[in-house]
Formats: sequence, C-alpha cells, structure tokens
Amino acid sequence: MSNIFGEFFQISIFGESHGENLGVVIGGCPSGIGLSEDDFLKDIERRKSGNPGTTPRKEEDKPKIVSGVYKGKTTGSPICILFENTDANSSDYDKLKEFPRPGHADFVAMKKYGGFNDPRGGGHFSGRLTLGLIAAGVIAKKIIRPLNISANVTQAGGIADINKAIETAIKENDSIGGIVECVAKNIPLGLGEPFFDSVESLISHAVFSIPAIKAIEFGSGFSSASMKGSKHNDSIISADGKTHTNNAGGINGGITNGNPLIFRVAVKPTSSIQKIQTTLNLKTGTADKLFVGGRHDVCIALRVPVVLESVTAIVFADLMLKEQKIKRINK
Amino acid sequence: MSNIFGEFFQISIFGESHGENLGVVIGGCPSGIGLSEDDFLKDIERRKSGNPGTTPRKEEDKPKIVSGVYKGKTTGSPICILFENTDANSSDYDKLKEFPRPGHADFVAMKKYGGFNDPRGGGHFSGRLTLGLIAAGVIAKKIIRPLNISANVTQAGGIADINKAIETAIKENDSIGGIVECVAKNIPLGLGEPFFDSVESLISHAVFSIPAIKAIEFGSGFSSASMKGSKHNDSIISADGKTHTNNAGGINGGITNGNPLIFRVAVKPTSSIQKIQTTLNLKTGTADKLFVGGRHDVCIALRVPVVLESVTAIVFADLMLKEQKIKRINK
Amino acid sequence: MSNIFGEFFQISIFGESHGENLGVVIGGCPSGIGLSEDDFLKDIERRKSGNPGTTPRKEEDKPKIVSGVYKGKTTGSPICILFENTDANSSDYDKLKEFPRPGHADFVAMKKYGGFNDPRGGGHFSGRLTLGLIAAGVIAKKIIRPLNISANVTQAGGIADINKAIETAIKENDSIGGIVECVAKNIPLGLGEPFFDSVESLISHAVFSIPAIKAIEFGSGFSSASMKGSKHNDSIISADGKTHTNNAGGINGGITNGNPLIFRVAVKPTSSIQKIQTTLNLKTGTADKLFVGGRHDVCIALRVPVVLESVTAIVFADLMLKEQKIKRINK
Amino acid sequence: MSNIFGEFFQISIFGESHGENLGVVIGGCPSGIGLSEDDFLKDIERRKSGNPGTTPRKEEDKPKIVSGVYKGKTTGSPICILFENTDANSSDYDKLKEFPRPGHADFVAMKKYGGFNDPRGGGHFSGRLTLGLIAAGVIAKKIIRPLNISANVTQAGGIADINKAIETAIKENDSIGGIVECVAKNIPLGLGEPFFDSVESLISHAVFSIPAIKAIEFGSGFSSASMKGSKHNDSIISADGKTHTNNAGGINGGITNGNPLIFRVAVKPTSSIQKIQTTLNLKTGTADKLFVGGRHDVCIALRVPVVLESVTAIVFADLMLKEQKIKRINK
Repeated sequence: MSNIFGEFFQISIFGESHGENLGVVIGGCPSGIGLSEDDFLKDIERRKSGNPGTTPRKEEDKPKIVSGVYKGKTTGSPICILFENTDANSSDYDKLKEFPRPGHADFVAMKKYGGFNDPRGGGHFSGRLTLGLIAAGVIAKKIIRPLNISANVTQAGGIADINKAIETAIKENDSIGGIVECVAKNIPLGLGEPFFDSVESLISHAVFSIPAIKAIEFGSGFSSASMKGSKHNDSIISADGKTHTNNAGGINGGITNGNPLIFRVAVKPTSSIQKIQTTLNLKTGTADKLFVGGRHDVCIALRVPVVLESVTAIVFADLMLKEQKIKRINK
Repeated sequence: MSNIFGEFFQISIFGESHGENLGVVIGGCPSGIGLSEDDFLKDIERRKSGNPGTTPRKEEDKPKIVSGVYKGKTTGSPICILFENTDANSSDYDKLKEFPRPGHADFVAMKKYGGFNDPRGGGHFSGRLTLGLIAAGVIAKKIIRPLNISANVTQAGGIADINKAIETAIKENDSIGGIVECVAKNIPLGLGEPFFDSVESLISHAVFSIPAIKAIEFGSGFSSASMKGSKHNDSIISADGKTHTNNAGGINGGITNGNPLIFRVAVKPTSSIQKIQTTLNLKTGTADKLFVGGRHDVCIALRVPVVLESVTAIVFADLMLKEQKIKRINK
Repeated sequence: MSNIFGEFFQISIFGESHGENLGVVIGGCPSGIGLSEDDFLKDIERRKSGNPGTTPRKEEDKPKIVSGVYKGKTTGSPICILFENTDANSSDYDKLKEFPRPGHADFVAMKKYGGFNDPRGGGHFSGRLTLGLIAAGVIAKKIIRPLNISANVTQAGGIADINKAIETAIKENDSIGGIVECVAKNIPLGLGEPFFDSVESLISHAVFSIPAIKAIEFGSGFSSASMKGSKHNDSIISADGKTHTNNAGGINGGITNGNPLIFRVAVKPTSSIQKIQTTLNLKTGTADKLFVGGRHDVCIALRVPVVLESVTAIVFADLMLKEQKIKRINK
Repeated sequence: MSNIFGEFFQISIFGESHGENLGVVIGGCPSGIGLSEDDFLKDIERRKSGNPGTTPRKEEDKPKIVSGVYKGKTTGSPICILFENTDANSSDYDKLKEFPRPGHADFVAMKKYGGFNDPRGGGHFSGRLTLGLIAAGVIAKKIIRPLNISANVTQAGGIADINKAIETAIKENDSIGGIVECVAKNIPLGLGEPFFDSVESLISHAVFSIPAIKAIEFGSGFSSASMKGSKHNDSIISADGKTHTNNAGGINGGITNGNPLIFRVAVKPTSSIQKIQTTLNLKTGTADKLFVGGRHDVCIALRVPVVLESVTAIVFADLMLKEQKIKRINK
C-alpha cells in the first residue's frame, strides 16, 4: 500500500524534494544481475532539467547503491538506492500553507496530514521522487530484456512542433501540457490477469503515480469509442498471435497478446507559472493575488518519457517474475 | 494479487460464464450495515441484458448471501455472494481454441493457461463476472454514504444520440463503442496517496478490470495536454477547497481535493459481431472465415455505467476505511 | 489481510458454523492440475467428528467445486469450493452474548463487531472453517509433490497413550489438550526469506489461524534454549545440505536447508466442557454458573493433524510458486 | 512480501552486515508524532554489544532520519532511517562459500542466490539488520501508547542465573541459548482476526524474522497441552474482559481480550563458537575441521529483548491503525 508498488519486483519509495536524501528500496530483484552506479546515469540524464522548457534547478542526481549489490552483481537481497538533494532552495515555501498554489498539492497535503507535511518544494509530492522510479526502472529494464520500452513526447501545447510550443509558452510566461506515447516490444504472451490485475490496470496504476498525468489510453483508446467492431477487431495473422492491426494496443482481456504494447498519456501543464494568479488566501479568507515565482519547468511533459518507461519496465518486471518468464537467479 | 482487489475493503472474485455459480467474497466490511438480497436488485437490474443493443441472454441474476450477514446486518466477517448461471448455452464454444475470435481473449487465455481454460462464454474472462463487482459495489455504496456516484453513457458510435447509434449498428450487423462518464460527489478531502496509490491509480486499476475499457481520463484529461497552465489551474474559492473550475477532476497530487471526482472511460465496440470475419484458423494454420453468431450486445458500453459506479464505490470504501472516514462498527 | 492468506497460492476463506455454506476461494493455482470432488474426501474424512473424543455432530462435509475446474483439470482461474452446513443446531446460542463462555471467542467477537457477530456455533470463529483450509490444502498437496507432509498427535493430556487420556477425560466430563508433530520431506532447498518471510514466520502465521493452537516450536525448539552451540549446530554431511543432526528443523536463516522440516504445536483443551463453570454474566454483572452443554470434542487436538498438514502445504505451495519450483502450467 | 512487513504501519528493511549502510523505510506512520534521532538511542543502546556474553564488535549505531520528519514531527510521508556500518572486518568471510559454517545461513544463502549473496558477516542475514527493526519499533512504541511492552531474558543455558550461565559458556568456548519473555499491557480489546491474521499469527510472523528464534508460546503455551479444560479456561471477572487466570495469554479466537499479552520465545545458542567443528568442505567434498573465530556473542538471547519488544510494537501499531485505535493525524 501507499509507498509500495509491485508484488514480485517490489519498490518502496521515500524522500522529499528538499530533504537530505530521497530514494527507493527494491525487493525481489533476481540475483546475479550486473549493476553499477554508472548504469543509472543515462536515464537520470534524460530526466534532468536544464533543457529549454525545464527548470534551471541543478542537481547532480548521483545515485548511491546502499545495499543489495556485491562485487558488481545483485545479491538477491533488497537494493537501496539513494540520491542527495544539493541545490534545494527552501526559503520560498513557508507561506504555502496559508496561501496554497493553484494546481499544486499544497492544499490537500496540508489537510491530509494536519499541517505536518513538509511543504518545501512540494515535499514528498515532488517530481524529484521520480528519481527513485527511474533507478528502479533501470534495474527493471535490465531484467526484462529483450523486452524493450521507448517513450516520446508526441505533442506539446496541442501541436506537434514541440520547440515552437515551448518558445511560445516561455514568451507568454505560461506553461503547457503534452502527450507522451510509450511503446513496448518483445513482450511475452500471456502476462496479466482478467481480474483485477489486467495489464492496463497495472500500467495505469503505476503511470498515475507520476505527477501531472491525467489520462491514459491503450491502443486506439478514446477513438475506439467511435469505431465499429468490424473495424476495431484485430485479425490474428500468425500462430504467435501477431495481428493485422493493433487497435487493442497489445492487450486482450487484460492479457498481453504478443503484439507491441502501445499507450499514450496526457500530461497537464506545469502548475507553477510566471504569472500572477488569483486564489484563496487561507489566512485572510479572501481571494488574493499570488505570484509563485521560483525555478520551474514550462512543459513538464518533456521530462515524462523516461519516467514512463521506468514505471512500465517495473510493471513488466513484476509480471514476468510472476509468470516465471524471468529466472530468480541470473547465471 | 490477481483475483483480489483492495486492502481494507477487499474483494475476491471467482467464477465462469457457464459454470454453475459465480460470485465474490468481501473482506473488511464494517459490521452493523443493513443488508438483504433485495438490496442488490436495483443495480443488478441496471446491468441486465434485454434492452435494445444488449444480448437477449436471459439470466435471473438472483444474488444469494452465503455468509457475513446475520439478522439482516453485516457481522464484520467475510461476505460471500453467489449468482447462478442458468441460461448458459455452451454448444457454440468448442471450436474457439482452434479458431480464436478476433478481439476476444480466446487466444491469450489458451496460451496463458496452456489450453486448460474454460472457453465457454469466455470462461473467467466473461463480462458476467461483473455481477460480483456490482454486488460488492452495492455494499460499498452503502458504507460510503453520503458520498454518491453516478455514471452515464454520453456517446455511442461517436454520436450523442445513442438510440440512433444503436439502431444503425443493429442494421449493419455491427457493434459500436461508447463513452461513459462517472461523477462522484461529497468526497472527503484527503483520500489517496502521492506514491503509489493516487486516487487516479486506484480508480484506473479497478476500472481497467472491467472488460472492454481501453482509456480513462480525469477532469480535463486529454484536453489538458493542449491547455495552458493559466487556464488549467483551478483557483480555490473557499476554505473547504472548492475550486472555480474543476480541470483537475477533483484530485491534486493524487489526493481528493473536496471537489467532485469526474472521469470518463472509452468502451471499445463489442468484439462479437454478426458479420463474417477473416482471422487465423490455428488448426489449419491459414486465414479463414469466421462467423461468431450467438447472442451478444451491440454496444457493451450501455451496460458499463453501473459497473463503473460499483468499482468506483469499492475504491472509495477502501480509501475511506483507510483514512478512518468510515467506522469499523456501524451503530 | 484478514481472511486472505498467501501471495502466489492465495486463499480467501468465508462462512459461519451455522450459515448455509462455508468455503474458500483459491487464486494462483497453476492450470492443468487434475481435480475432482472425490479428491477432497480422504482429508475431509480425517478431520471428521464421530470418533471417540470428537463431537457427535454429523455433517456430510461434501465439497462442491464451484469454479476454476473444467473437464477435470484446474483452469488457472480462481477455484471456489463450498461446503453446506446441514446438521446445525442453533437454539443453544442465543444467550452467549450475555453470558460468554470461558475460553471461547464469544466475548471478544461481541466486542470487536459491536454485537453484530453471528454467535451460532462460534460463527466465523468456528473450527468448521478449517474445512476450507483442508480443501485448499488438498490442492496444495497435489502441486507441491513430491514434497509430502505428515502430522500426528504425539500426546494428549500430557501422556503418550492417547486412548487412555481420552477415556479419562470423558469420564471426568472434562477436556484435554495435546501435542501434534508435523514433518515435511523432499523440500526444495532455498525456500523462504531472511526478513520477513522466514519459513518459520509463514508456517507459524498459518498455523496460528487454526483454532486452539497456542505454541509452536521448530526442530529442537524450546529445548534449544538449554543447549550449547557445539551440540545444537548441525554439521553438513553432503553437498545437498543434509546434516548429521536436525536441531534446526530444516531451516537456517529462515530458509529451507534441504533437510526435513519438523515442528510441533500445542493444542489447548477444548473450551466447551460438560461441567458447570463460573464466569461473568454480562447481563446481571455478577459471577454466575454456566453449563455449556451441546456436542463437543473432548480433545480437539485429535482433529488438528490434517489441518496442520493443510496449512503447511498451503505455505509450501506459495513458497514454491514464488521460487519457481512449481510450473504455472502443469502439462 | 519478503523484505516488507505490515499493512498499515508498513516497514521495508534493507542492508547487509558489512555494507556501507543498512536501514528501514516506514510507511503509514501517522503525522504529527514528535521524533528526533535521540529518541532511538535508548533502545539501540539496549541492543548493543559490549556486555559480557556479547561480541566486542563496536559500532556507533547512530541513526540518521533521512525522510518523513519535518520540524521534529512526522509528516505522514515514508520515514527512512539509516545506520552506518563502520567497524566491519570483512577479511574473514571469503572462504564461507566453500566451507559453510554449521548453524549459519551460509549454505542456504549460497544456494538460494546462486552464489551471488554477500557473505561478509552473514550479509543480509546478519543480526545487524535488527537495528532497522528497533528503529521502526521506537516509532511504533510511541504511537501505540499507553500500550506498553517489556521483554526480559528469563533463563540462559537452561538456568535462571544468567550471569553464571554466561561465565560457564565463556570458559568452555561454547555458546548457549535462552528464553525471553515478553509482556504487553493496556492492549485495546478486539485487535486481530480469526482467519488469518490472529494476533498469534502476526506476532509469530514478526518474531520468527528475528535471527535465532526457534519457538514461541502464548500464555500457558506448551503446558496447555497437558492441562484440562476446566483448569485452562480463564473465567471472565469484569465487564471489560479481565479474567481470573491468563492461560490464554491475552488472546481468544485470535483476538485480544483485554488482558495482558504474554509470550515466550526460545533463542538457540549462537552458531559461531570458539571451538573447532567438523563439517563439510564443499570445495574438497569431504568432512573437515573448521574454526570460525571472529568476534561473536556467547548468548545471543541477551540482545533479543529489545528486538522482541520492537517487532511486537510494530504488530500492534499495524493492528491499532487497522482497528482505528490510533488516529492518522496526531494533534
């Protein structure tokens, strides 16, 4: 529950945006998988800020393997990976409990935890927690091979020319949403369950843990609703289950069918914008002007692909261990 | 895992379309809740076939409370509810393992279970299993009051005039998909978790257990991706968290924010159609003509609303028990 | 939680002593296992009452397979097994909420569930619920082969001559406790976890679900506390882990070590006795004389062996599926 | 599963004896609980080595709160606590995979993880991992107040004079086992479940995670097996459930009955002894002489009480959160 996901490849996440460390514990990883701190760098780099449209906050994001690895291989014991927070700037956050930012979790966090939550940088609600997802995802990607997963931003602010969309948003001191598409190939047939752990159930469960995601569709998704059965049904064309079309997105009855998994998610626009907003000042009890300021992404969707790949890999690691498609000892 | 959902209000589902019985076991239900077999009838009736666009298969769908109720009240012990299958017609299903129906789970079920699955009427993959969800949902709806949930078909076959869409599809011997919208009101603030049990995570996990659902969006959903932050951010207008707009669909940071939960799902067109289809005959190894025949819904979306309400109620029962918003003993 | 045990071979139990049915749902069972209702009879018979020292209540205890089996083989979908209660005599139980029986769960059940519990025959606390455990155990025993489990009463009322102990107790209108020993052989090496799912943890968790069990010891157990290390340490004598002695009871560091698992449990004397007892009458608020009467076992330990075997088999089915020692499809 | 325990107060453990850090992540802790690093010191001190009969290995065992605490109070987000390993001496452990120590987990760890386990100091199987249990226990003890738990060694090497037993063992270069008794008072009535989460089930599950424990008994425990029902039954003497005797150890039907919980555990003698032992040399395939050497406890039971209290507190925190006896927000 709560900060734990998965049953066979099981991750526990912890940390806050401005705490000293954040990280993840991974249980159930097979032994004998080669793993070094360098293995995480590529995916961590992909997540990083610093590109146009992303926050200038600079974090080294250097992973530290605390446990579960010996002589460069996983031991079969829980793997803990830590990240330090070094460039946190906490001075801006004191007023958030009185004056919660629109679109953010400030208000709900305060209410849910009775005002005891750490408000700095969103605390435990911060997108920085996705570093733990990426670390777990890197390990998951290793063990699910040759299954491979690739995600890309397909549009931002409603258009396909993403650079242009970002430029406009920066100019307007505003933020924009985006669409990210994820494709997984070489998936073993037969993963998932009819009730309640359909592949769509598990993927969406994981995906909606990523901050800012508000929608998901598999295969033809929402357009299925306008289609006829004669068009939507994917004809099987070979004995391994390959189909002529892939409206199902690789899943029938909740189970992988041997075709690529395809899904798309909608990422809402970043809540923090460089504009004055009107919202409730809880201290005064009246509507008031709020300027959030700080260092923020213009289009958070740009940083989503690697996180989306990670949670998808985590789900598949879990499912493949369950269905005995991955060996517990990797010799 | 698998056939179990929930942690505090926990349901286990079992049964097949053409087996003698199917049902559900519900653990964690508070004691002292009034419950009779009649209480289930209204929602079961809403799910029933027999309307234009639904299958003429006639089932009495009479629930039998097997355990967990004494003198008309829940005891706090597990509640088992059974349904009989009476109008099953199994003669049609023998060939499905050789000649799997496009769009159905026949092929994946055969592969996943090594050919041992019950193919009759889809076996455990059947939409009839949703009776168990409805039974659990009826109990959940009782305990989450005054939280109330309402779902409706908003379009079918791409148009809002649903009767017309059904008529056309029947005429064409085809099937159509649809959109169902669900709204929940009077939700306690503070339900859900940032990682990994966001309300979106839990609702979508449950929703994608319903056969034929291929997409879900919360609040502005996919259209968020085209919006600017200044437009998408919902300004708080009162101390209880009410917002001017509800683009977030009632959830910030995975947590309920005191506004109505709004989400929409896409239901794919029924896979069984009254048309000849071309697909692989596994026995001959070549493409072949298949006519499914049988008694089937034209638009399965018509039967989804009550099931959607049910799984949503189950999720809220779980979350409200966790957050101590429901008492374990109902005096 | 609660009425669910296991993660891979997962059972949900439900029912009451005097309800219409009780039963179990089993998720995660591999497909392709031969299973008929007759397969359950032998172990059910072993549990039955009717022998000297057991209650004369006569129940047919005929299992009904409701789901998960098709053409005599498990399908991979959840298996539900039901038992009817036919010889229930409920007239005696009305006063138990006012005058709880010493040693029974009457008082705690009333308090825990706010008085809404079903008091008839102990309701959900009844030993009849162990029928569900036995049913699940029969299936578990099939899939863990050649691992085999055998349990026996080794003493009753403090002596090894069990018949004599029973006779004496009957004569005295009293009840007696007993010791049951369980041995499992042909166990794969490497099952279990250091934290928190040691084999001792899982076995004891399951065993203490059996009513009336108050103690468990593995290998040398309590006598280990008086031993020296030089005596207690089991020397390994062959490359497959066989040891000269078996003080560890087949487990090191929570993990099976290739030797037989040996454990013993203490079963308390049956709480219902044919003697007048003094206890609190909650209605009058004063100490009062209570005669329980009814039909009861003199030595409940006599019925424990088959239940002990069952829960042990369930634990091993779970562990062996996890460690991929059992195939998900049994061809 | 595996490295996770609890459902509501949920702990994940990680680390190795000679790794850089070990620790624990605690999910589900209510917000608003005062917590500083100093709060852990007293219980950590109680566990420490350095007393007669315990290893001279010196570790500072300074806890570091990594997450979940803000301004001295728990936030409601996961709490991670780390400990450094500073006095590890790893040179002795290289040969253990060839020549496993009797009584230790060396052999099973090697087999279970295919030789990839970290053998230094027992790796993840080390008693040092109990530091994480103690850290979680300190927090649990705070939230379950006024419930309080106290454990003590009642005998070692078969006698009550523990100092004498230790002296003798040291003189003989041998090790000894012991008995530890644990008592919990002020327990709310009604915790626990009939199936499968009886209080005995949960306590024993947690207790058998502590290295070296081989037996547990509740209340009269093994002596119940020799008692008569007329003697064993505890008469209720007051409306809050207090009983005249406490043979049940505070539990009926798996549920707390308002009386103190009493249980005893057997701790086996330390496996590492200062004597030459004969066991299998896996490299040569023949019996060989092994001298373990190193720094080890003579009587590991001496360090068990605080760990036993900790896991008991963790179980009660879990149960009390479930039964709504602890508030999620501590104002």
